Amino acid sequence: MNIVLLEPEQTQSELWNIENPRQFQHLRQHLQLQVGDSLKVGIRQGLRYLTEVVALNETRIVVRPIETEAVPAKHPVHLILALPRPKVLRRMMMDAVTLGVERISLIHSYRVDKSYWQTPFLQQLDDYVTLGLEQAGDTIAPEIQLYKRFKPFVEDVLATLITEQRPAYVAHPYAEHVMPHAIQHPCIVVVGPEGGFIPYEIELLKKNGCQAVSLGNRILRTETAVPSILGRLFI
Amino acid sequence: MNIVLLEPEQTQSELWNIENPRQFQHLRQHLQLQVGDSLKVGIRQGLRYLTEVVALNETRIVVRPIETEAVPAKHPVHLILALPRPKVLRRMMMDAVTLGVERISLIHSYRVDKSYWQTPFLQQLDDYVTLGLEQAGDTIAPEIQLYKRFKPFVEDVLATLITEQRPAYVAHPYAEHVMPHAIQHPCIVVVGPEGGFIPYEIELLKKNGCQAVSLGNRILRTETAVPSILGRLFI
Repeated sequence: MNIVLLEPEQTQSELWNIENPRQFQHLRQHLQLQVGDSLKVGIRQGLRYLTEVVALNETRIVVRPIETEAVPAKHPVHLILALPRPKVLRRMMMDAVTLGVERISLIHSYRVDKSYWQTPFLQQLDDYVTLGLEQAGDTIAPEIQLYKRFKPFVEDVLATLITEQRPAYVAHPYAEHVMPHAIQHPCIVVVGPEGGFIPYEIELLKKNGCQAVSLGNRILRTETAVPSILGRLFI
Repeated sequence: MNIVLLEPEQTQSELWNIENPRQFQHLRQHLQLQVGDSLKVGIRQGLRYLTEVVALNETRIVVRPIETEAVPAKHPVHLILALPRPKVLRRMMMDAVTLGVERISLIHSYRVDKSYWQTPFLQQLDDYVTLGLEQAGDTIAPEIQLYKRFKPFVEDVLATLITEQRPAYVAHPYAEHVMPHAIQHPCIVVVGPEGGFIPYEIELLKKNGCQAVSLGNRILRTETAVPSILGRLFI
């Protein structure tokens, strides 16, 4: 947690209270805060501030904003992920948010177990976004959409998003071309499920304007591939 | 698991048995193997083969090597990691191995809890390496060393490894210069603990030849930083 994210309604007065148990406990455990210390605080979908601790007790920390700080810019990338298994969903969402993805679409694919769409973790996406923003020092949540049908998504949604200025790259271990690096333009990145997209899916993606690109001759887990791809694309 | 890794002593005869329960169960669960199917098998520290399934029953799969395949090359990077907390040690080691790191040193640092050095997970590093190799399709384990004292490591070990041809980069959020990208030379990458190196440590690293470099203005978790850095350095 590199900033504390507060809701706009928590920041209406001159002094702001940090009393959410998760945030309060984290600060208690990791920082030995005292009155007069500074603390970075962001307002969800708003500005980021350097604040000063003016009071603290057993249940809350009271801070006063001192000055605004820059909110880190996002990368102009729309990440499309085959819905990961519940166990890694949290980590992948947190990572994507921390890494500064502008938009995330979770989609179905042949190798996505149907049961994954029933996981209660899908109700917690907002919490994962908050954790990712607090890690990155960011305040602006990416847009998130869910698409439970692969073909309609690719043909009716994805195909309309791809332009010459915003190409789409599908990570595919056996592709002939390699993923570009240090790009200067917006893009769409598509990452398949564990085990990869099936050939029919790769063909449909290509037919609808995606470029299949490889990440070299090592096959990465999807949760490793996402930070690796983003680190490579946006330097 | 993109190859099955066997020990050299398991591959002395013409037919090889896959009967390790973890490997056997994984293949059972994820592949509907039948006699005649092909399967990628690697020999630890040796070659990699395309094999053919010649028999299978409830406890083992028997394969016959058909032809050798290329083992993916490693990246010429020595990764130095502040010992992560036990919960993320497995993932970080697997990721580093999958991503093709040549050598890994786990080191102490001020913000590494001393208890981390007692975790039983440190006895399982070889298992994590195996998982990472099987994911990547690699057969060659990286060298791994542990250094429980920071200062002697930096002064007596790290300082002697750094040359003009093999620079060392310490990921540090507040550094003035940025991490290079798409490099063509060997390097050393140093990644601190959660919460970062303390100023004394950064100074000692710099004094001993390391370059402090930033990853931009988003602060990444260490487990996210490692694939992101490697994806950026080696394209």
